[in-house]
Amino acid sequence: MKQIDFWFSIGSTYTYLTVMRLDDVAKDTGANFTWRPFNVRFTISKIASGYRPFVGKPMKLAYMWRDMARRSERYGLSPKLPAPYSLDDITIPNRIALVGMREGWGIAYAKEAYRRWFELSEPADKDPNISKSIEAAGADPQRVLPLADAKETQDELLRASEEAHGLGIFGAPSFVVDGEVFWGDDRLEDAIEWAKHGTLALT
Amino acid sequence: MKQIDFWFSIGSTYTYLTVMRLDDVAKDTGANFTWRPFNVRFTISKIASGYRPFVGKPMKLAYMWRDMARRSERYGLSPKLPAPYSLDDITIPNRIALVGMREGWGIAYAKEAYRRWFELSEPADKDPNISKSIEAAGADPQRVLPLADAKETQDELLRASEEAHGLGIFGAPSFVVDGEVFWGDDRLEDAIEWAKHGTLALT
Repeated sequence: MKQIDFWFSIGSTYTYLTVMRLDDVAKDTGANFTWRPFNVRFTISKIASGYRPFVGKPMKLAYMWRDMARRSERYGLSPKLPAPYSLDDITIPNRIALVGMREGWGIAYAKEAYRRWFELSEPADKDPNISKSIEAAGADPQRVLPLADAKETQDELLRASEEAHGLGIFGAPSFVVDGEVFWGDDRLEDAIEWAKHGTLALT
Repeated sequence: MKQIDFWFSIGSTYTYLTVMRLDDVAKDTGANFTWRPFNVRFTISKIASGYRPFVGKPMKLAYMWRDMARRSERYGLSPKLPAPYSLDDITIPNRIALVGMREGWGIAYAKEAYRRWFELSEPADKDPNISKSIEAAGADPQRVLPLADAKETQDELLRASEEAHGLGIFGAPSFVVDGEVFWGDDRLEDAIEWAKHGTLALT
């Protein structure tokens, strides 16, 4: 089965559903995911100037929370919705995730950051979420935060976001298999099908 | 199982997938659909001034066509993509559909209008699509078109669109079950699940 790149951005709402269920999905299907943090706002700003998916659209925002509530039930998740939204600075949690991916604790951090954001109503771009999630992932916030703020990591997030844009990604979560982009938690099953068969015609 | 209102708007792209597969889905699942034509542009204009889902977003538009191509394969459909888009006047095919729903040939018309639009590249708001689709549904275009243009039908489309907006609908296709809105062809299975169990937790 082909490798699947899981492009995520801590700041995206639907990404909660994917982050919380991805390990189980991988186990159940044999799919193999590479977790790629990026800045979804960078890619959104590239597709249309001034465009924001939910800003100024209260009916669409309300629908999104209701849709997430129903789908959370399907996945056995119990978020407290609506979660605090939107985050002020989505670069910080994704820069921490990049440091974590380098060092091997990035996935654990992303899961805890989302759990605290959606289940404890702690925004993922502020303390206590930041420190507690780094600690839960087994790392030391005092050592990690300067690394996350370093120019090297800022640049790395920008490069990852440019790479995502270059692949045709404009939202999160997105899955990329063999050059095919699948956008949304609700396309995870399509991505896995594509990784297996290179077509959706067999389902 | 609870009744499902299928709110559709000839002019929406993803609605092609739903219109073409809905009879089979109804047969396979026992779900019962009421077809409700409306003007999706009316509801979109209500959620945010000037907002259009794909206008000025070429990357998102390209993704939509690719996503539709993959999912069409899944459903055994063979559209010629991209289909002519967007339509100049989406009210005309939906007013014809309203007349057809009144008289019993509306579903056959909607299916043929979509088939010709997506498989023969004939825009659904112009001839030959209009006349041929009415004829294929067993009605006479010369009799039907004045009815579709009548003030009564114009008003009926506006009322249906206001009703859709009042239900929380902002896009097409949408499914409404027991006050719950499910947006998108990709939420059809959720809507059926809800009609059966009032929750998605059992899947």
